[in-house]
Amino acid sequence: MTRRVRVVICGFGNVGRNFARLLDSKRRMAADRYGIEIELAGVGELKGSVLSEGGIPPSSLAEYFEKHGNLGDYPEKGKPDWEGADIVREAARTDVLVETTPTDIETGEPALTHIRLALERGWHVVSANKGPFIRNYQSLKSLAGSKEVEIKLSAAAAAALPTLDVAQTCLAGAEIHSIEGILNGTSNFILSRMRTDDMRYDDALAEAQRLGIAETNPTLDVEGFDTANKLALIVNVAMGADLLPGQVDRTGITGVSADEVRRAAAKGKIIRLVGRASMDDRGEVRASVAPTELSADHPLASVDGSEKGITYTTDTMDRITVSGGKSDPRGAAAALYKDLLNIYRAP
Amino acid sequence: MTRRVRVVICGFGNVGRNFARLLDSKRRMAADRYGIEIELAGVGELKGSVLSEGGIPPSSLAEYFEKHGNLGDYPEKGKPDWEGADIVREAARTDVLVETTPTDIETGEPALTHIRLALERGWHVVSANKGPFIRNYQSLKSLAGSKEVEIKLSAAAAAALPTLDVAQTCLAGAEIHSIEGILNGTSNFILSRMRTDDMRYDDALAEAQRLGIAETNPTLDVEGFDTANKLALIVNVAMGADLLPGQVDRTGITGVSADEVRRAAAKGKIIRLVGRASMDDRGEVRASVAPTELSADHPLASVDGSEKGITYTTDTMDRITVSGGKSDPRGAAAALYKDLLNIYRAP
Repeated sequence: MTRRVRVVICGFGNVGRNFARLLDSKRRMAADRYGIEIELAGVGELKGSVLSEGGIPPSSLAEYFEKHGNLGDYPEKGKPDWEGADIVREAARTDVLVETTPTDIETGEPALTHIRLALERGWHVVSANKGPFIRNYQSLKSLAGSKEVEIKLSAAAAAALPTLDVAQTCLAGAEIHSIEGILNGTSNFILSRMRTDDMRYDDALAEAQRLGIAETNPTLDVEGFDTANKLALIVNVAMGADLLPGQVDRTGITGVSADEVRRAAAKGKIIRLVGRASMDDRGEVRASVAPTELSADHPLASVDGSEKGITYTTDTMDRITVSGGKSDPRGAAAALYKDLLNIYRAP
Repeated sequence: MTRRVRVVICGFGNVGRNFARLLDSKRRMAADRYGIEIELAGVGELKGSVLSEGGIPPSSLAEYFEKHGNLGDYPEKGKPDWEGADIVREAARTDVLVETTPTDIETGEPALTHIRLALERGWHVVSANKGPFIRNYQSLKSLAGSKEVEIKLSAAAAAALPTLDVAQTCLAGAEIHSIEGILNGTSNFILSRMRTDDMRYDDALAEAQRLGIAETNPTLDVEGFDTANKLALIVNVAMGADLLPGQVDRTGITGVSADEVRRAAAKGKIIRLVGRASMDDRGEVRASVAPTELSADHPLASVDGSEKGITYTTDTMDRITVSGGKSDPRGAAAALYKDLLNIYRAP
């Protein structure tokens, strides 16, 4: 027997469209292996949205948007002038909001409004957007709890690298004493090139920009803001804390010299931008982001290039590290899709 | 609101007793964080068992067994001459069987009988014993499905290293194309020492035996049988296959010479005992266990000493590796405890 699950997507950028295409390419697998059929009820976008009682073919909607840049004039089902919030308010018999709008770390909007509306309506929420959760995770979590629905954020924490699943499922029942993570692929790529090719920071950054790995303004990545944001999210989910990114001691990689990298290598060490958090005996969390010398036998030392990885140290299971995972929009879409399946996974 | 969950433990060796002690030491956390209260309904052992309507204090039962070597004469609740199967048949209002009897890879007994009885009675099964599942995973899985209960085997696959959770939860919806694993801590310890201390195989084995890492008869570990057994279990759970350990091409590490290890190191490579499995286009699984040269940037290359690790290569999430995790009886107990919590984790 197949269970039908209706989803609304807010935000139809690269991640949202990749997710929509997975709904088609994985349709058979979802039915055979998980017993669910996922129907796209609507998509909310800034410049017009789409909504349908009978469902919308996901891949062709993605194609339509790529061609027209607007969903509002989609035949019959288009809703000109409607935004995400309108779709979440109006969609009937919907089970899950898939939130993929652009991230605003400060306000969390417009996703925060979408998510609150969806939870109030008793929908599960699956999000690739970390903005709304940075400051409101515990309050949104209790709203979800009161409605007996789930919030899942795998895609927001590090795309296909399963940082939160490992903490919540693989380490269930264990106390997480500390977390160390290489959470920013751009910084790790730059530090990797500085080491393997004896490059200066500026040259490695320029190469990362040439390859499309670093943005023209790389501040968010290389100054450690992105790592601090992800770390705060992971800490709040995994340790039940209420850490703000601003409370994370933060040092970026712009001051790392070729000479420091060389001296570390001579000692058999590797410099990486590491986010760390630990909980003291009173339950207080201390967190930092800084270039850190890792010895060669540290489990994160082999996380190379634009890869990411995270290490949890626990009471009953010792130290567990997970690394790798596709980190582009397709990886984030796969993480959204995973979260959606796991909400309904039997029993 | 707290939900009461009643469990029966079969097998009260190191793993079973460590699990019982977790029931006490984690009691408060289980109630606060997961909303469940776990009650020990009975314990089955070869030389007499124990069963109680009102529950049994787990830690003091473990102490009693360590002192008396027999549960049959436990005050009031002891059942002389009863074995595990009797307890599983007679225990009232029970929710979960926790199976920790010694492993018999060939027959799967006595665990196979316990598990079939428990599933027939509509109990979930959490097992540290891989024996019963090596040949019967798919049939036990469908029996569980027909009763709408779960089978969880984390502790059987590699103790606290979350091989199966990663495959089933973190990679939900992805196709696993191939698996590579360092699954035997003893072999990995020996190969690690041969490399770092330029030791011969015999000397490294002798040291492992001195440290209690290798058994007096190390055949199961060093000839790759243990790796093949774990690999078959993981492949069957993660890929839905029906692979028998005897179908795994198997070469152990006894033939690895100090010279080979040295030559590999000179090329920047590391020799490890790697279990591999991959699925071809027709859905056929090919599996092998053999000493394998890993390049330094392979994610399993940093799995050192008696640690373990596993790499999954997938369609939508690329390559994900998890490593570490306590591998002693306390680690296995923590894995059983995790599986138990995850059965009831909301929603």
